[in-house]
Amino acid sequence: MRDPRTVRCTFYLESEIDPEKAAAILAGEQSSGTFLPVPGESARIRERHAAHVVEVRELGASRPSLPSRGNPEKVRAALVTVDFPMENIGTDIATLQTAIAGNLFELGELYACRLQELVLPEDFVAAHPGPAFGIEGTRKLLGDAQGVMVGTIIKPNVGLSEEEFRLVVRDLALASIDLIKDDELMTDPEYLPLERRVAVATEEIRAAEQVTGHPTMYAFNITGDLAGLRKRHDLVVEAGGRCVMLNIPIMGLPALALLRTFSEVPIHGHRAGLAASMRSKALGVDYRVWQQLARLAGADQLHASGLGSKFYEPDEEVAANIRSLLKPLGETATPLPVLSSGQNVTTPGPTFEAVGSTDLMMLAGGAVAAHPAGPAAGVRSLRQAWEAAVEGAPLEAVARQKAQNGDEALLLAVQKFGKGA
Amino acid sequence: MRDPRTVRCTFYLESEIDPEKAAAILAGEQSSGTFLPVPGESARIRERHAAHVVEVRELGASRPSLPSRGNPEKVRAALVTVDFPMENIGTDIATLQTAIAGNLFELGELYACRLQELVLPEDFVAAHPGPAFGIEGTRKLLGDAQGVMVGTIIKPNVGLSEEEFRLVVRDLALASIDLIKDDELMTDPEYLPLERRVAVATEEIRAAEQVTGHPTMYAFNITGDLAGLRKRHDLVVEAGGRCVMLNIPIMGLPALALLRTFSEVPIHGHRAGLAASMRSKALGVDYRVWQQLARLAGADQLHASGLGSKFYEPDEEVAANIRSLLKPLGETATPLPVLSSGQNVTTPGPTFEAVGSTDLMMLAGGAVAAHPAGPAAGVRSLRQAWEAAVEGAPLEAVARQKAQNGDEALLLAVQKFGKGA
Repeated sequence: MRDPRTVRCTFYLESEIDPEKAAAILAGEQSSGTFLPVPGESARIRERHAAHVVEVRELGASRPSLPSRGNPEKVRAALVTVDFPMENIGTDIATLQTAIAGNLFELGELYACRLQELVLPEDFVAAHPGPAFGIEGTRKLLGDAQGVMVGTIIKPNVGLSEEEFRLVVRDLALASIDLIKDDELMTDPEYLPLERRVAVATEEIRAAEQVTGHPTMYAFNITGDLAGLRKRHDLVVEAGGRCVMLNIPIMGLPALALLRTFSEVPIHGHRAGLAASMRSKALGVDYRVWQQLARLAGADQLHASGLGSKFYEPDEEVAANIRSLLKPLGETATPLPVLSSGQNVTTPGPTFEAVGSTDLMMLAGGAVAAHPAGPAAGVRSLRQAWEAAVEGAPLEAVARQKAQNGDEALLLAVQKFGKGA
Repeated sequence: MRDPRTVRCTFYLESEIDPEKAAAILAGEQSSGTFLPVPGESARIRERHAAHVVEVRELGASRPSLPSRGNPEKVRAALVTVDFPMENIGTDIATLQTAIAGNLFELGELYACRLQELVLPEDFVAAHPGPAFGIEGTRKLLGDAQGVMVGTIIKPNVGLSEEEFRLVVRDLALASIDLIKDDELMTDPEYLPLERRVAVATEEIRAAEQVTGHPTMYAFNITGDLAGLRKRHDLVVEAGGRCVMLNIPIMGLPALALLRTFSEVPIHGHRAGLAASMRSKALGVDYRVWQQLARLAGADQLHASGLGSKFYEPDEEVAANIRSLLKPLGETATPLPVLSSGQNVTTPGPTFEAVGSTDLMMLAGGAVAAHPAGPAAGVRSLRQAWEAAVEGAPLEAVARQKAQNGDEALLLAVQKFGKGA
């Protein structure tokens, strides 16, 4: 039984020494430990403030995954569960991170140190607001959008002049798309400042909505200096913008939490840079841990790669990460998983099979902008592919059927992006 | 010749495909790239905004270091130099990080991606203030302290009551120590709030200074929510505190830059969590890259492990990292390298040999608090060990000499912490 006043973490560790001892070193380093017994380290402190090793499950010998001062031939791998007293941490996210994902990664005795699982105390979760909008709030802002929402990224992602940018936005907004987003690299460059992007994009979206009747959300990337964060947010809101975007791992979870305190629109959470501390299986923090913190800090929409993407995670890992986003976390609103990279009409089938939900946003670049019949057909083809996936209908048959009825969007997309293409 | 308007990065990459092609994919992903040619990606954009692969030096075949969607037996390793146009980035640190340390770590074609070197354009460096105090400013606040400064961490690091805390600070301040710091885990817990720590520590330090005549700096850890950052800083300054501490990797470089805009005291930069994106040689960012950004953002004092420490980096790597901190960076003030973990009287010799500078702060825990003759002797022994190191005198001979002259501090320390101890 877990003490409800503790934070429970499961780590994958490798060590030359007994895994029990390695776990104790980690627990000591991250709570009341020091090398040498010093005056004042009383039994009271150890009792109330020491992290406790709850379980050590040895996994056998392996070669060391990470470099250290030593260079052993073999190390002992183990899954280790440690409980950290909430009293040390309080309810602060940065303090939590320091305890469960701080100095421990540096420990010389460890040849792997990976935070794989996190169970937070109810009191910790309850102390954070979570997403202000989440799935439901995003749908509402999109005119009660049903099913999977479709979005895209402005391409070319950097270098557009204001007039070029205007035409790209116009085309996409007229395509009745749900979301357009800045590339993560596009922040506030001199050649196309955020202020101009906001003015142009909101103007074009408003005009397009008069034609299509379909609301479009633009995720303006307000990543940048913290001193200007509020100003950039206000710029978006005052122009009638409906979403701001933040590169969370680079700005830090505290920056996300700060933005959450004043944001009047959903926060589109990009994960650029996260893989630096996530991709090695022997180091850093698992996505399913990180997403809990990003949710508590207030991300309404969260990137999670996509099935069939150009990114490293295999599809089963991507699917597990998406499912983790859809799991309840206390009383907080559920964030909208954002799927991106290499997404096209062939992706909805396997995605729905793996995830079993349409509470998703799918971002497609080429599949929208490079659709043979233009962006509107691109968006339509993706929505049709999602309908087929949910119905369990075979994609190509549906595409041919629709073409016979005069709508070639899906067929053209299948021909361009499909497996045999 | 590097175009002075570009950011030059050297990456270690592994790929199954030709390293030239892998480098081009990275450069494309991090500038004006997309999978499929899309309308509007003009020659002008490619010319002005594309990152350029400058050099590819193949290193031979190896087993893949990181997992990806594929599972090749062998990959080709290479050192790759890429120039990123400053026009894409401007002078914003978060945008720079997004470009050079963002999505690239996720690329499925890469089986290793490590940013090893960074050369920033002069204009970028000049746009940032750098440390407000640095080495010189820190020395000044310590009464023009000469040589290596000696500091320590409050131990036990968590769990002390206010009265216990008071006694620990009193002992250390009466030891004429240069710096006392909070542990990175100690932020603002209910059982010993920052406000009380600030009140107690500044009071004890003031009282001790009346006795010793030696100023002591306390690095109060103001890591926590960003909404309260200024308030916590002001608390320290208003009580007469002389230093604030930030867990930089967890708070984010933008948080450090924000703190720099208003901090009236030196910023003690802790690196808790940095190893998550630094320890694997196949992933993330090298310390010598990261430290440049932390300096531009304004860290006055920066942790860099220590020779002989309990952390993973071998001594030669620690020394190289320390030397990188002492190198000039534009016109900015030089930050004070902070050495910690396992530091005692045996450490100055090898450290001075490897680093050749006394512009350092050495933090010692046990070597101060657990010195057989008490903290004052602990501090004195460390200062004496540094004098011996700089003079090139053998430690044990100096210790015996001093003992003969009636000061046993160093001898006791050598006996307790020395090699044969």
